[in-house]
Amino acid sequence: MSAPAFGFDLLASDGAARRGRVTTAHGVIDTPAFMPVGTAATVKGMTVEEIAATGAQIVLGNTYHLMLRPGAERMARLGGLHDFMSWRKPILTDSGGYQVMSLADLRKIDEDGVTFRSHLDGAAHALTPERAVEIQGLLDADISMVLDECTPFPASEAVAAESMRRSMRWAARCRAAFKARPGTGLFGIVQGGVYPDLRRESAAALMEIGFEGYAVGGLAVGEGQEIMFQVLDDTVPALPQDKPRYLMGVGKPADIVGAVLRGIDMFDCVLPTRSGRTGQAFTRHGTLNMRNARHMEDTRPIDPECPCPTCALHSRAYLRHLFQADEMLGPILLTRHNLHYYQQVMSGLRAAIEGGRLGDFAARFALDEARGDVAAG
Amino acid sequence: MSAPAFGFDLLASDGAARRGRVTTAHGVIDTPAFMPVGTAATVKGMTVEEIAATGAQIVLGNTYHLMLRPGAERMARLGGLHDFMSWRKPILTDSGGYQVMSLADLRKIDEDGVTFRSHLDGAAHALTPERAVEIQGLLDADISMVLDECTPFPASEAVAAESMRRSMRWAARCRAAFKARPGTGLFGIVQGGVYPDLRRESAAALMEIGFEGYAVGGLAVGEGQEIMFQVLDDTVPALPQDKPRYLMGVGKPADIVGAVLRGIDMFDCVLPTRSGRTGQAFTRHGTLNMRNARHMEDTRPIDPECPCPTCALHSRAYLRHLFQADEMLGPILLTRHNLHYYQQVMSGLRAAIEGGRLGDFAARFALDEARGDVAAG
Repeated sequence: MSAPAFGFDLLASDGAARRGRVTTAHGVIDTPAFMPVGTAATVKGMTVEEIAATGAQIVLGNTYHLMLRPGAERMARLGGLHDFMSWRKPILTDSGGYQVMSLADLRKIDEDGVTFRSHLDGAAHALTPERAVEIQGLLDADISMVLDECTPFPASEAVAAESMRRSMRWAARCRAAFKARPGTGLFGIVQGGVYPDLRRESAAALMEIGFEGYAVGGLAVGEGQEIMFQVLDDTVPALPQDKPRYLMGVGKPADIVGAVLRGIDMFDCVLPTRSGRTGQAFTRHGTLNMRNARHMEDTRPIDPECPCPTCALHSRAYLRHLFQADEMLGPILLTRHNLHYYQQVMSGLRAAIEGGRLGDFAARFALDEARGDVAAG
Repeated sequence: MSAPAFGFDLLASDGAARRGRVTTAHGVIDTPAFMPVGTAATVKGMTVEEIAATGAQIVLGNTYHLMLRPGAERMARLGGLHDFMSWRKPILTDSGGYQVMSLADLRKIDEDGVTFRSHLDGAAHALTPERAVEIQGLLDADISMVLDECTPFPASEAVAAESMRRSMRWAARCRAAFKARPGTGLFGIVQGGVYPDLRRESAAALMEIGFEGYAVGGLAVGEGQEIMFQVLDDTVPALPQDKPRYLMGVGKPADIVGAVLRGIDMFDCVLPTRSGRTGQAFTRHGTLNMRNARHMEDTRPIDPECPCPTCALHSRAYLRHLFQADEMLGPILLTRHNLHYYQQVMSGLRAAIEGGRLGDFAARFALDEARGDVAAG
């Protein structure tokens, strides 16, 4: 069976928002889509069966972690990331650049790329645009990302411009180095900080190179929702209609709803998984801290209307007990709920766009979140 | 729907070995049976769906942990342990005595019972025979255990005799205090160290009191398999045929096979779960350390003939990676495999007894274990 060509179909739209479908070697992704983060070849605490049961059609793998352990060439010998983690659906990998800057030691950036020492064993590594796409090929990614420089926030316009232009030169080198296997694609990343002219210049530069999709990078770095939405308002209209658009590292459910309203198709974020491990539950009515003593004898589930297996089987009192007792099952059950909730939001967004009622959906979503705990209602 | 009466049916036997069925308020237990340990209202790292999928028909809860957190009266208000952890099948609880001696601080034993301070917050608690069975009732146990004194090992015959006789007086108090709810039972515990006369005296004392089942206690405390089997040879023939027999805290698969040959029906042990968390896999051909570097590029499952979901989906290389990376999914997947393996051993034992070929089964089991890693075969 030959893999289908990588592609994007725009199925419906509602204002700037789009309902689409990405086709890859390992299956389709209905957009707007949320991608759980599977850093080290595992979405922490979740079996692949459970990930699929949440409705997720794609997961994200982190190149930085995987190039260090088990290593890119070893991963290729083992059949690639799909085989390795036994996830048969699409995978997007990042370029590794962001984690190099946040996790590695003794990093050094120049025009060629970045050199660093592993945070695991101190071994020296280099990541160039060419090596970043080579590694992602070895990992068997359906969607690879260009290596870009992470512009600090805040940055002056001059600094943001210089950084963005280097990223555009790297993007061209990534494109040249990318060996497309059937059903795979390479996404460019728009940079330019909070400066509309730079964002538009970056978008134009990427479109001139040509990619299978376009990401908006450099956000969710502390700028706040208002500035993030402003950057999207400035940037998204400059992107092509016929390619998927991916907002990297975002975000809270309300961030996602606002970004979908502005024309974004794909998202990833550690929030539902990381919060699941620390005891924070996401619900229609905002977040709950499951460690709170008020749950001690509360026999209701997190949300009685949530169809996830955690809410079908388990009480707040039990979840609170598991977190108090430091039992693994607490993070497992709460991660499962949070990922189900995120996928419910995405599925609600897709249905609302199809029905031409996204405005109503977004207004209702905002009111529900403002209402506070389900239990108070 | 009224609960069935607690009972034991002997379905078949092969030498001293028995194939039976225990009936409880929450369902039946096919014996010989292995009970996964669910200390703090959770079998560590396993969802209740996954526990049931291993074939387990009963889990064990630890009274010591649960009386401290969430507390026995609170557990009763929350509907009991079945509701609390959402496990709808039978539950056996221990009496708390063993963990008081191994975990609590400032413990003091006298004829009335034991007082101690919680290892969690230092609060003072008391456990008498009467309170131990009351707590197990509050937890909603299908099978409750008498409070006994843990005889040290090694112990002189005089020390073992004194300790055993106190345990027998406590057993009578437990029996008097036990308020049987429909479908529940109380098990006595034979003590007496390594001394055949004391074991027989203890068995006779318990039978005089009368229990729904009889446990053999004070083993798996460092005495070794040979002495353990000798104590079983001395003790089991003194127990009634028409009641279930439970060997507490045992053991390795080979211990279980040997004890079934000697007429034991029920087992519990932390080995498959604890080993699953530390990286040790149980297989037909002995144990494997999944952290070992030799698994680094081994794409085979732990055991290609194992029908568990871990072996169906995941390679040794992946499991090794997860343990190296300290990922929760490693303990999750390996615990799942180990519990499946233990249940496969039990199901093999049950079928062998039914078929009158337990001797062949045990011989084959010993040869297989001696052979070493599946991969070598």
